[in-house]
Amino acid sequence: MGRMLGYGDIKLFACSGSVELAQEISDYLGVPLSSYDLVEFPNENLFIRLKGSVRGQDVFVIQSMATPVHRNIMELLIMIDCLKRDSAGRITAIIPYMAYARSDKKDQPRVAISARLIADMIEVAGTDRYITVDLHAGQIQGFFSIPGDVLTAYHLLSQYFVDKQLENAVVATVDLGFAKKGRNYATRLGVPLAFVEKRRSGKENKPSALNVIGEVEGKNIILVDDEVLTAESIAQAVHLLKDHGARDIYLCFTHALLVDPAIELLRDLPVKEIVTTNTVPIPPEKQLPNMTVLSVASLLGEVALRAHEGRSVGELFNE
Amino acid sequence: MGRMLGYGDIKLFACSGSVELAQEISDYLGVPLSSYDLVEFPNENLFIRLKGSVRGQDVFVIQSMATPVHRNIMELLIMIDCLKRDSAGRITAIIPYMAYARSDKKDQPRVAISARLIADMIEVAGTDRYITVDLHAGQIQGFFSIPGDVLTAYHLLSQYFVDKQLENAVVATVDLGFAKKGRNYATRLGVPLAFVEKRRSGKENKPSALNVIGEVEGKNIILVDDEVLTAESIAQAVHLLKDHGARDIYLCFTHALLVDPAIELLRDLPVKEIVTTNTVPIPPEKQLPNMTVLSVASLLGEVALRAHEGRSVGELFNE
Amino acid sequence: MGRMLGYGDIKLFACSGSVELAQEISDYLGVPLSSYDLVEFPNENLFIRLKGSVRGQDVFVIQSMATPVHRNIMELLIMIDCLKRDSAGRITAIIPYMAYARSDKKDQPRVAISARLIADMIEVAGTDRYITVDLHAGQIQGFFSIPGDVLTAYHLLSQYFVDKQLENAVVATVDLGFAKKGRNYATRLGVPLAFVEKRRSGKENKPSALNVIGEVEGKNIILVDDEVLTAESIAQAVHLLKDHGARDIYLCFTHALLVDPAIELLRDLPVKEIVTTNTVPIPPEKQLPNMTVLSVASLLGEVALRAHEGRSVGELFNE
Amino acid sequence: MGRMLGYGDIKLFACSGSVELAQEISDYLGVPLSSYDLVEFPNENLFIRLKGSVRGQDVFVIQSMATPVHRNIMELLIMIDCLKRDSAGRITAIIPYMAYARSDKKDQPRVAISARLIADMIEVAGTDRYITVDLHAGQIQGFFSIPGDVLTAYHLLSQYFVDKQLENAVVATVDLGFAKKGRNYATRLGVPLAFVEKRRSGKENKPSALNVIGEVEGKNIILVDDEVLTAESIAQAVHLLKDHGARDIYLCFTHALLVDPAIELLRDLPVKEIVTTNTVPIPPEKQLPNMTVLSVASLLGEVALRAHEGRSVGELFNE
Amino acid sequence: MGRMLGYGDIKLFACSGSVELAQEISDYLGVPLSSYDLVEFPNENLFIRLKGSVRGQDVFVIQSMATPVHRNIMELLIMIDCLKRDSAGRITAIIPYMAYARSDKKDQPRVAISARLIADMIEVAGTDRYITVDLHAGQIQGFFSIPGDVLTAYHLLSQYFVDKQLENAVVATVDLGFAKKGRNYATRLGVPLAFVEKRRSGKENKPSALNVIGEVEGKNIILVDDEVLTAESIAQAVHLLKDHGARDIYLCFTHALLVDPAIELLRDLPVKEIVTTNTVPIPPEKQLPNMTVLSVASLLGEVALRAHEGRSVGELFNE
Amino acid sequence: MGRMLGYGDIKLFACSGSVELAQEISDYLGVPLSSYDLVEFPNENLFIRLKGSVRGQDVFVIQSMATPVHRNIMELLIMIDCLKRDSAGRITAIIPYMAYARSDKKDQPRVAISARLIADMIEVAGTDRYITVDLHAGQIQGFFSIPGDVLTAYHLLSQYFVDKQLENAVVATVDLGFAKKGRNYATRLGVPLAFVEKRRSGKENKPSALNVIGEVEGKNIILVDDEVLTAESIAQAVHLLKDHGARDIYLCFTHALLVDPAIELLRDLPVKEIVTTNTVPIPPEKQLPNMTVLSVASLLGEVALRAHEGRSVGELFNE
Repeated sequence: MGRMLGYGDIKLFACSGSVELAQEISDYLGVPLSSYDLVEFPNENLFIRLKGSVRGQDVFVIQSMATPVHRNIMELLIMIDCLKRDSAGRITAIIPYMAYARSDKKDQPRVAISARLIADMIEVAGTDRYITVDLHAGQIQGFFSIPGDVLTAYHLLSQYFVDKQLENAVVATVDLGFAKKGRNYATRLGVPLAFVEKRRSGKENKPSALNVIGEVEGKNIILVDDEVLTAESIAQAVHLLKDHGARDIYLCFTHALLVDPAIELLRDLPVKEIVTTNTVPIPPEKQLPNMTVLSVASLLGEVALRAHEGRSVGELFNE
Repeated sequence: MGRMLGYGDIKLFACSGSVELAQEISDYLGVPLSSYDLVEFPNENLFIRLKGSVRGQDVFVIQSMATPVHRNIMELLIMIDCLKRDSAGRITAIIPYMAYARSDKKDQPRVAISARLIADMIEVAGTDRYITVDLHAGQIQGFFSIPGDVLTAYHLLSQYFVDKQLENAVVATVDLGFAKKGRNYATRLGVPLAFVEKRRSGKENKPSALNVIGEVEGKNIILVDDEVLTAESIAQAVHLLKDHGARDIYLCFTHALLVDPAIELLRDLPVKEIVTTNTVPIPPEKQLPNMTVLSVASLLGEVALRAHEGRSVGELFNE
Repeated sequence: MGRMLGYGDIKLFACSGSVELAQEISDYLGVPLSSYDLVEFPNENLFIRLKGSVRGQDVFVIQSMATPVHRNIMELLIMIDCLKRDSAGRITAIIPYMAYARSDKKDQPRVAISARLIADMIEVAGTDRYITVDLHAGQIQGFFSIPGDVLTAYHLLSQYFVDKQLENAVVATVDLGFAKKGRNYATRLGVPLAFVEKRRSGKENKPSALNVIGEVEGKNIILVDDEVLTAESIAQAVHLLKDHGARDIYLCFTHALLVDPAIELLRDLPVKEIVTTNTVPIPPEKQLPNMTVLSVASLLGEVALRAHEGRSVGELFNE
Repeated sequence: MGRMLGYGDIKLFACSGSVELAQEISDYLGVPLSSYDLVEFPNENLFIRLKGSVRGQDVFVIQSMATPVHRNIMELLIMIDCLKRDSAGRITAIIPYMAYARSDKKDQPRVAISARLIADMIEVAGTDRYITVDLHAGQIQGFFSIPGDVLTAYHLLSQYFVDKQLENAVVATVDLGFAKKGRNYATRLGVPLAFVEKRRSGKENKPSALNVIGEVEGKNIILVDDEVLTAESIAQAVHLLKDHGARDIYLCFTHALLVDPAIELLRDLPVKEIVTTNTVPIPPEKQLPNMTVLSVASLLGEVALRAHEGRSVGELFNE
Repeated sequence: MGRMLGYGDIKLFACSGSVELAQEISDYLGVPLSSYDLVEFPNENLFIRLKGSVRGQDVFVIQSMATPVHRNIMELLIMIDCLKRDSAGRITAIIPYMAYARSDKKDQPRVAISARLIADMIEVAGTDRYITVDLHAGQIQGFFSIPGDVLTAYHLLSQYFVDKQLENAVVATVDLGFAKKGRNYATRLGVPLAFVEKRRSGKENKPSALNVIGEVEGKNIILVDDEVLTAESIAQAVHLLKDHGARDIYLCFTHALLVDPAIELLRDLPVKEIVTTNTVPIPPEKQLPNMTVLSVASLLGEVALRAHEGRSVGELFNE
Repeated sequence: MGRMLGYGDIKLFACSGSVELAQEISDYLGVPLSSYDLVEFPNENLFIRLKGSVRGQDVFVIQSMATPVHRNIMELLIMIDCLKRDSAGRITAIIPYMAYARSDKKDQPRVAISARLIADMIEVAGTDRYITVDLHAGQIQGFFSIPGDVLTAYHLLSQYFVDKQLENAVVATVDLGFAKKGRNYATRLGVPLAFVEKRRSGKENKPSALNVIGEVEGKNIILVDDEVLTAESIAQAVHLLKDHGARDIYLCFTHALLVDPAIELLRDLPVKEIVTTNTVPIPPEKQLPNMTVLSVASLLGEVALRAHEGRSVGELFNE
C-alpha cells in the first residue's frame, strides 16, 4: 500500500465532453472539480485559462471524445498543454471513450491508422498517463508508449446480467470482431454463444448478407457489443434473431454514442432492455424507457485514487 | 538550379478547407489534383482512402485551417498519416492559414501555447516540410523543427497599393502588435505611419479607450492588419480615424476569416476598398462589392515547384 | 510508375533465419545476395562485417523471427545498426514472421506489450521501413511509426482452395480471434462459416471445453488460422470436428512454426492436406507427405521491387 | 499550498555569468550556493566537478548568457549534463538573460532561428525546467517543450516610476517592436504613448530616417525597451526627442548589456536617470552616477521557492 | 542525506541471469525479491506477469547479460516494459555484466556499434536509470542518455591484494587496452608495471607474436584484466611470463564468463590464485580450488539504497 | 559504384575555424566554397546568412573545433540550423578536430560526459552525417546515432615514417591510453614498442613519477600521440627518453593544438622532427623549422566525394 508518492494533491478537471461523469467522479473522490475559463473565440479557436495553479499537483483531466469529436479532442490537448506549461506534477488523461479507435489498422491499402495518430497527439501534448474504458481493440494500448490503465465495463455489465438470472439465455455478438469478448460474457454467465455474421460483397463495401451462426431459437438473447452508433447493425441483428425464433432480446454495450437514427431505431426495436454505461453522455431525450445506464464513475474514481496513492489497480478486479 | 532531386513526381492533394485554392495551384503547376475518398462516419470520425499510390512521390497537401477549424486540422493530420503509411517520398503541408497562431505565447499565467501544440501535431503526424502564409508572429516558424517556407502576401498586397498611386496616403495599423509590419508597408509606399492604440482597463480585459497616434487628418488611410475576424476592432478603428478627419480608408489584410458579424459590419463601414487574399476561402455571399481578392495560388504553386526542383525560393522575392 | 527514386541500387541481405527464402527472393529479383561475415564469439555475442559498402544503396534485409528467436532478433538489429552506420540510403527490414506478435495487448494486469517493444527496437536500430506477412493482429502495424507493408498470404492460400473447387465445403476457425479473417476466406470461397470455441475455466488458464458453433456435419472443412505452433489446439479442433461428423479436413495457415510436438501430432491427424507457406523455414524432416508449402518469395520480391521503384503495392492485389 | 513535493532539498549552483545575482538569490532563500570545481583547460575546454552529490535533489543553476556568451552557454550545458548524470531529482536552469533571443524568426531567407537552437540545446542537455526574464519575444517560450517560468521585470520597473510620480509624462519606445509593451507601461502609469520610428532604406540595412509618432513636446519622457546593447539606437532616440522639445528623459530597460560604446554614449546623453536591473552583471566601471539598478534576486528566488514547493507563481503578480 | 524522495518503496526483481546475486542483494537490503511468473512458450517467446503491483514504487531489476545472452537481454527488456506499463515510479536496471560491451567502436569499416544499440534498447524499453560494473570501456556510459552508476570492482579486487601483502610484485596486463587500468592497480599496490603485447599480423586477424614489455623476471605477477572468456589469451600470457622467469602468478579480473575451454585451460595453468567476482554466475562445476570469488552484492545493494534515498554514491569510495 | 544518389550537387561551406583546409578540400574537389555573410554582433551573438540557396543540395560544412572553441562550436551549429531551415537535401559536418573529446567518460563521480553533449548538440541542430579525424577514443563514434565517417591520419603519418626508413627505431607512447594505437604504428613499421608511464600520486592529481617501460637505449624513437596541447607531457617524455639513452627522437601526432607554452617548449626540445597534420590550423608563427605538416585535405575531400556518390570509403584504405 506504501507511503504517499511524490506528487501533490489530486486535482480534477472536467472538459466539456464529460461534465456530468466528472462531477460523479469528483463526488466519489470527495475532491472538487478545479475551475477554469474556457472561451471559444469567433474563429472557433479554444482558449483555456486555469483559475488556480497546478504546480506539482497530480492532475486528472476527464474528457470523452464523443460529439463534437474534433473540438473535444482539441480541447483535451490544449488543456494538457496548459497543465504541462503550468508545471503540473503529473497529468493523467481520463478518456472514457476514445474516438478513432476503429481506425486501428490498415485493412486496405492507402488508409491511415488514426488511432495511433490520436495516441501520438495525446503523448506529444505532454500527457504522462491515460485511463480509458473498453478500447475497440486491446492492441490500441500498444499505440501508447506512456503507461495507462485500459479498464473495461465488462465486470459492471456482466454482473448486471448475472444478477438478473435470465433462464435459457444465449450470448450473441453483432460482429465477428467481438467474438472473443462475447465468449467472455458467455463464460461468465455459463451460457452458449452465437454470432450474427455480416458478409460484405464486392466493392461497394456494404453488408450484403446476414447469417446466424449457433442456436438461438427459443432463447433469451443477450446481444453484446462495444459501442452502438447508428444502431443500424444492431437493428438488423435483432430482426434476424427474431426471424430465427429468439425470445427476449437484451442489448448490452459500453459506449452509447447513439447518433441518428439510433434512438428512432432503438425505440421501435423489439428488445426487452438496453443496458449500457455513461462513458459517453446520454442526454435526457435519448434516454429510452427500457434503457439502464450503469455508471463508470466509481470505477474511474477508484482507479484514479489508486494511481495517486501507488496502489494496485489489478486487485480491484481480483486479478 | 541543379539536377532533379531524388523524389518522384509532384502529387497534389486538396483537403476540404482549400478546394478552390488547391485547384488554382493545380492549374498553375499543370499537375492534376490526386483523388481520394473522404468519408465522415456518423460518429464524425473521418476516414480517408487514397485512390492511387504515392509511394516515393513528392506530395503536397493543401489545407487551410479556417472553419470548421478542428475538423480541418484533423483531416490534415489524418491525410498526412495516410500519406506517410503509404510511403510517400516527402510530404509537404501547404497551410495557407494556420489556426491557433494567436495562442503563441503565455501572456498571462496558466494558459497554453496552442500554436506550438499545432506545430507538434503536424510534425508527429509525419510531415516533412510545411509552407504557410503570414503567420501571426514570425516566431511561430521556430515552433517547428522541420524546415518550412513561411511566405507573405505582403509583396502582393503592397504592390497592389503601389500600383494604385494613392496621393496623400498614410499607413495605419489597427493594433500596436502590427506596428513593425505596418512600418514595412509605409516604407514600401514611401508614406507616413500612424497607429490606433487600444488600451485595456482593469480586469475585465476589454478595450476601454482608443487613441490615434500620428497624423491622419485629411489623409487617405491604408489600414493594414494580418487577419480580419469579426471586424469589430477594424470597425472601431475606421470610425475613430474618420472622427479624426481621415479622408478615404482602404482595408488591407491577408486572412479574410470574416466570421459574424464581419460582413454586416464591413458592409456598413465607410471604407473605399477592402483588399485581401484567398488564403481562407471566401464564399460568394461574403464577397462584398468593394472587396478585391488577390490570389496566393501562383505564389504557393511557384514555391512548391521550386521546393520540388531544389531551387531557391528567396530569389522569387529578389532576396 | 514514375522515374527512379533517389536511392542507389537494391542490395539484399539474408540473415540466418531466412536463408532459403532470401535466395528465392534474390532469384525473383535477379539481384544477388550481398555477402558479409557473421561471427558468433564464444560469449555468444554476434559480430557482423559487411563485405562491401552499402553507402547510399536501397537495402533490404530478410530475417524471419523463428527459432532461435532471440538470437535472430538481435542479429537483425545488429545488421541494421551496421547498415545504418555504413550510411545505407534506405533500410527495409523484411520480416516474414514477426515474433512476439501475440503479446500485443494487456489482456490481464501487469504484463508487457512485447510486440510494441519489438517494433520500438526495430525503429531505434535505424530501420526506415519494414515488410511483413500476416501479423497476428492488424493493429500491430500501428505499433510502428515508420511506414511498412503488412502483406498477407491470404490471396495465395485462398486462391489455392479456389483452384481446388472443393464441394460442400465450410470454412472453420480454430479460435474466435480468427473469426473475421475466417469470414474473409468463407466469402472468397462462397461457403458457410463455423467456429471451434475454446472456453477457459477459472484460474488455471487452460481450455476446459470445446464447442462447435455452426454446421459441420457431412462437410469438407477448411480449418484456417494464422500460425501453427505445437498443433495442440488444431489437433483438438480436428478431433472435435470429426466427432461432429465432418468429412475431409484441410488445414490452412501462414506461419508453420511447428515446434514439438507439432510434427508428431500432425502426422497422426486425420487431415487430407496441410497447406501453408515458407514465411518460416520448414526443414526437410518437418515436411510431411500431405503438406503443401506455397512460397511467399515472389510476393515479397515484387513488393520490394515496387518499393524500390516507387510503384503501387496495393495494385498488386487489385486494391 | 499543498504538501511538499517529491524532490529532495533545494540546491543552488552559480555559474560564472551570474555569480553576484546567484549570491543574492542564495541570501533570499537562506540556501548556500553549492560548490564545485570549474577548470578551463589550456585548450579552452571546460571541466566541472561537483563537490557534493545532488542525487534526487531539486537543483537550480543560475547562469546569465552575457559576455563571454558562448563560453557561458557551454558552461551551463556542461553543468546540466553533470547534474543529470549525477542523478539530480529535477534540474531548473535560471537564465536571467537568454542570448540569441533576437534570432527568433526568419525575417529574411537563408538565416537561422538560433533562439530555437538554444532552446533545443538546453533541453537535450537534460534540463527539466527553466526560469528566465523578459525574453525578447514572448513566443520564444514556445520554442521550449519543457515547462518554464518566463518572468518580467515590468512590475519592478513600472512600480519604480509609479512611485516617482512624474508629472506630465509620456512613455515612448525606441523601436516599434516594443510598441505593445510600451503600451502596458503607459496604461500602468496612466500616461500617453509615443514612438520613435526607424525606417530602413534600401539594401544597406541601416536606419536612414527617424521619426517621432505622437506628442512629446514639453513632456517628461520615459523611454522603455527590453535591452540596451551599444546604446546607439537609444542615443539617437534621445537626441531626436530633445529636438522635438522633450523635457526630462528617463531610460528604462531590463537587460543592461552595455557593450562598447554604450557607457561613453550614455555618459554624455542628456538623460535624467537610467533605470535597469541586474539580469546581466554590471561591473563597477559601468555603473554611471545616474544609474539605478533594481535587483531581480527576490523575484527569481521567490519563484524558485514556489516551484520547489508546488505553489502558484501567478499569484505573486495577483494574476 | 536529505529527506526521503518521492518514490514508493524499493522493489527488487531478479531476472534469470542473476538469481543468486539478486538474493544476496535482497539480503543486504532486507527487502524480499518480488515474485512474478516467467513463462517460455513453445515458440521461445517469453511472457512475464508480475504477481503484485509496482505502481509508483522504486523498482530495481537485476539481470546479468551472460549466457544465454540474447534471451537474457530480451527478458530484461520485457520485464522493463512490464514494469513501465504497470506504472512503476522509477525503474533501475542493475546489469552486473553488460553484453556486447566490446562492440563499442568501429575499428574497421562496415561493422556495428552494438553496445550503443544495447544502450538504446534499454532506454527505449522505458528504463529510467542503470547500474553496472566495470564496463569494457568507460566511454560506454556516454552511450546512455539516461543517468547511471557505472561501478567498478577495482576497490574490492585491489584491496584483496593490498591485504595479501605480496612481496616483490609486479602488475601485468594481458592486453594493451587495459594498460591504464593496470597502471591504477600498480599505483594502488605501489609496484611496477609490465605488459604482454599481442601483435596481429596481416589479414587473418590472429595474434602472431607475443612480447613482454617491462621487467618480470623473478617477480610475483598480478595479471589483471576486465573479463576472462575462453582464457586462451590469459593462458598464452601466463606461459610467456613463466618463460620470462616470473615466479608466482595471480589472476585478477571482474567478469568470470569462463566459456569453453576456459575451465580446462585454467585448471592446468601454473597460477597460484584466481581472484574474480560474481557479476556473472559461476556454477559449482566451474569453481576451481584456487579460485576466490568476491561478491559485488553489498556494493550493488548499497548503491541501490543510496539511489533510493538520494544520497551520494561517490562518498562510498571516498571520492 | 552505382548511379548518382538523390541529392543535388555538392556544396561546400568553410566555417571560421577551417578556412585554409576548406580551401584545399575545395581545390581537391573542384567545387568552389559557397559564400555567406557572418556577422558578430556587439553582444557576441553570431548571425549567418547564406548568399545562395542550398535547397535539396548535398551540403558539407567544414569546421574544426580549436580556438576559439566555444564560438567555433556555436558557429557550426548555427550554420547547420541555417542549412536545415533552408531545406538542404543532406547536411554533413566535417569536423577535422572535435573539441571536448577527452571528456568522454565519468572517470570520477559528479563530472559530465561533455563529448556526448557535443554529439547531441550536433544532432539536435539537424546534422545528417559527420566526418571527423582521430577521435580521442573510438567509442565517441557511438555517442552519435547519426552515421559518420571517423577517419584517421594514421595511414598518412605512418607512411611518412615507412618512407623515412629509420634504422634501429622504436615506437614509444607518451601515455598508456595510446598504447594500442602505438602498437599499430610499431606493427606497421616492424619495430619494438615502449611506453612512458605517468603515475599520479594522491589527491593533487598531478603526475608524480615517470617511468620508461621497454628498451629505448641507443634507439631512434618515434614518439606518437593523438594531439599535442601545451607540450608539457611530451617535453617530460622526451627528456626522460634522452636520460634513458635514446638517440634521435621524432614526434608524430595528428592534432597540433599547440597552445602556450607549446611552441616555446618544442623549440627547445632535442627532437629531430615534428610530424603532424593540418586538422587544426597552424598559424605561420607556430610553424617551427623542424615541423612537417601533412595535409588531410585530400583524405577529407575524397571521403566527401565518395559519400556524395554512394561509393565505399573503406576501400580507400584497402579495408
